[in-house]
Amino acid sequence: MSKRTVYLDYNATTPIRPEVKELMVKALDIYANASSMHEAGRQAKAEVEKARASVAALIGADDPSSVYFTSGGSESNNTVFMTMLALARKSSRRKIITTAIEHPCVLNSASHLKDEGLPVVFLPVDGQGRVDMDAYRRELNDDTLLVSVMAANNEIGTIQDIQLIAGMAKAKGAFVHTDAVQAAGKIPVSVKDWGVDYLTLSCHKIYGPKGIGALYVRKGAPIEPLIRGGHQEKGVRAGTYNNLGIIGFGKAAELALAEVADYGRNVRKLRNMLRDEISGKIPYIRINGHPTEVLPNTLDVSFPGAEGESILLSLDLEGIEVSTGSACASGSLEPSHVLMATGVGPELAHGSIRFSLGKYTTEDDIRYVAEKLPPIIARLRRMSTVSASEAAVGKQN
Amino acid sequence: MSKRTVYLDYNATTPIRPEVKELMVKALDIYANASSMHEAGRQAKAEVEKARASVAALIGADDPSSVYFTSGGSESNNTVFMTMLALARKSSRRKIITTAIEHPCVLNSASHLKDEGLPVVFLPVDGQGRVDMDAYRRELNDDTLLVSVMAANNEIGTIQDIQLIAGMAKAKGAFVHTDAVQAAGKIPVSVKDWGVDYLTLSCHKIYGPKGIGALYVRKGAPIEPLIRGGHQEKGVRAGTYNNLGIIGFGKAAELALAEVADYGRNVRKLRNMLRDEISGKIPYIRINGHPTEVLPNTLDVSFPGAEGESILLSLDLEGIEVSTGSACASGSLEPSHVLMATGVGPELAHGSIRFSLGKYTTEDDIRYVAEKLPPIIARLRRMSTVSASEAAVGKQN
Repeated sequence: MSKRTVYLDYNATTPIRPEVKELMVKALDIYANASSMHEAGRQAKAEVEKARASVAALIGADDPSSVYFTSGGSESNNTVFMTMLALARKSSRRKIITTAIEHPCVLNSASHLKDEGLPVVFLPVDGQGRVDMDAYRRELNDDTLLVSVMAANNEIGTIQDIQLIAGMAKAKGAFVHTDAVQAAGKIPVSVKDWGVDYLTLSCHKIYGPKGIGALYVRKGAPIEPLIRGGHQEKGVRAGTYNNLGIIGFGKAAELALAEVADYGRNVRKLRNMLRDEISGKIPYIRINGHPTEVLPNTLDVSFPGAEGESILLSLDLEGIEVSTGSACASGSLEPSHVLMATGVGPELAHGSIRFSLGKYTTEDDIRYVAEKLPPIIARLRRMSTVSASEAAVGKQN
Repeated sequence: MSKRTVYLDYNATTPIRPEVKELMVKALDIYANASSMHEAGRQAKAEVEKARASVAALIGADDPSSVYFTSGGSESNNTVFMTMLALARKSSRRKIITTAIEHPCVLNSASHLKDEGLPVVFLPVDGQGRVDMDAYRRELNDDTLLVSVMAANNEIGTIQDIQLIAGMAKAKGAFVHTDAVQAAGKIPVSVKDWGVDYLTLSCHKIYGPKGIGALYVRKGAPIEPLIRGGHQEKGVRAGTYNNLGIIGFGKAAELALAEVADYGRNVRKLRNMLRDEISGKIPYIRINGHPTEVLPNTLDVSFPGAEGESILLSLDLEGIEVSTGSACASGSLEPSHVLMATGVGPELAHGSIRFSLGKYTTEDDIRYVAEKLPPIIARLRRMSTVSASEAAVGKQN
C-alpha cells in the first residue's frame, strides 16, 4: 500500500491538469521557432497568438496584444519595476508605493529601486492583511510614479480592493500595477474593472506548466524590456518563444476562466470545513488573514507553542504537504514577513502553517488532515518550553 | 500524399528528441514546487540538481553549482551585461569589448550599456567572420571590464578562438563571457579549457525544450540577479523552478555531450554534400563564413541577383524550411548585420540563405534541396533587375 498523499500547497504551485497535459504532449512535437518565416514557424506563431487571446480573456483585456509572455510572475514583476526606474530618470515623478506584504520579487525589486535612489514606501497593512488606506492616502501624491499592490496575498490569502486603490492612484496620475498571480483562477480578475496599467500572471498557479507567465500592459502605458534582444513580443521581451509553455498557458487560462465560479465555491466549502475542524479540535489557534476578503482556497493558521517547520515535517511524514509560508522564501530562517506585517509576533509567525486547497482536494483529504493534525500539535506543544496559552496571549518575548 | 518537409533551420531551433520527449511526458506529472520543504518538493529539487550536473558536464564545469538555470540564452546574456553595468559603477574598469556579429541579445545589451555611459567597442571581423585580432589587441587595456565574444556564430557558423581571446583578456584582468548557444552540442565546449568566467547556453538548440537555458558563472566571478525575488538559484535568479524544462535540459545535455563527435561528423558530411551540390549547380554564389573554422552543420550562401526572402518563400512552397539569417531578427527589413560585418554588401546580404542541418537531416533531404533550389534561383534571377554576375562582383549600388 502506497502512502496516502494530501497535497495542500496549491498556492506554491499546482499540478498540470489533464486537459493541459494532453495538449502539451501533442505540442512537444511543434518544433519550429515561432519567429521563423517558413510554414512551420508561422504555424507555431499561430498557436502562440491563440494562447495570447485566451490569457487576455482570463483577465478581461479587450486587446490580446496587450498581453506579453514572460518566463513567469517574477520576471513580469521585475519588468514593471525596472521600467519605472527608467521612467523616473526622465519624469518629474519618482515615488514608488507598494505594500509590506508583497511577494519577494516585488519587495526585492522595490528595494532595488530604493537603492537606486527612488523614494519607495512599503505601506503597512491591518491585522487582517488589508492595506492601511489612511497611510495610502497620506503617501499618495503628485510625485507618485507607481502604485503596486498585489490582488491577493500568497500566504494569508487576503484580497485587496484593487479597483479602489487603482482609482485613487489614477486620480493622482500614477501608474498602477497589480500582481494577480494568486488571484487569477480563484477570483474574477479584470484589468478593465480594476483600471490597472500593468498586471502580472503566472501559469503554474492555474494548473499549467512552470516557466511561463505574462505581463499585461495597458495600451499606451510605457514598458521597457528587461530582457533585450530580438524582435519577439514587439521588442518588449526577447527570447525564442516557449511554444510548449505558451500553449499550456492558453489552455489553462481558458479553463480557469470558464471554471472560476465553480472552483471558488468548491474550494471555499472544503477550506471552511478544514477551518472548522481545526478550530474545533485544536485550542489556542489564530486564523490569519481576512475573514471574508480572502482567497477561497487559503487557510493560514498559527499554532502558538508549536514550531512551523516541525509541524510541516510532521505532517509531511503523514503524507500531508503544506507550507510555512511562501515557497519562494523557503530556506530563509526569517519569520514570514506577511504575518509580521499583520502584527503577529515572531513566535506566532514561526508557528504558522499555510493550507492551500485546490482542484483535487476532497472531503476525505480534509478529514485525514483533521485526524492527523491535532495529535501533532499536541505533541509539539508538550515539547515546547512556552505553553500554547502563554504564546497565544503574546507572552513570547 | 502529404507534402515532403525538409527542415534545415536547426540553428533557429531544434525539435525535441524522443529520449527527451519521453522523459518530459513523465515529468509533466512532477507537480511540486522545487523550493517546497515537503517530500514532493524535495523530490522535484533532486531532479533539478541531477539536470544541473548534466548541464555542467556538457560545458566541462567541475562544479555543478556554477550553473544557474534561466529562461534561455537571451536572459543569460542580459544577466551578464547588467551585472557589468552594476560593476562598472564601483570599479575603475568600465570598458566593454564585444563583436559586431553577436546575437541581437548581446548587441542590444551592449548598446544599452553604451546608452548608460559605458565605453563599448564592437570589434570588426574579417571577411570570414573571425574577430580582427589586431583591433582586439588595440582595444584591450587595463580599463577593460568585460570581453564578450560568441563561441560560434548563428548565421555563418564561424567559430572563434575563445581560448586565445579569453587568455588575452584574463592577462589584462578583464572578465570574459562567451555565448555558446550555437556551439554547444555541435563542437566541444569547455569552460575550463577556454578559461571563461561566464558562458551562455540554451536548451532548445540541443534538441530540448524552449524557455530554458543556463548561465555558467565561474566560482568567485561576480553576478547580479536580473530577476530579483525569492531564494532560488542562491538568489541569482528568482522564479519558481521550471521543473519540466530543466529535466528536459538535463537529458538533452547528457545526450549532446555523449554524441558531439558523431553529430559533428554526420552533419559535416551532409553539409559538405549540400555545399558541393549548390556550388556545382548554381553559378555566381558566395559561401559565407570560414572554410574550416565553422560549425559542421551550417552553410550560409549568398545568391546574387536573387532576394533572400523570395528564395525562402519559394523553398517553403516546396516544403524546404530555411532562414535568411537569425530568426530572432526576422520581421526586420535590415540586411543581416553579420554578413554586413564580414564586408558583404547590402545586396548580397539581402540575397542570402542559411541552411542549418541537424540530427534528422538525410542524404535524401540534401538531394531534394539540390533538385529544387537551382530552378528557384534561376527564376528569381530572371525576374531581377540586376544580373547575378553584376551583383556578384559588387556592382549593386
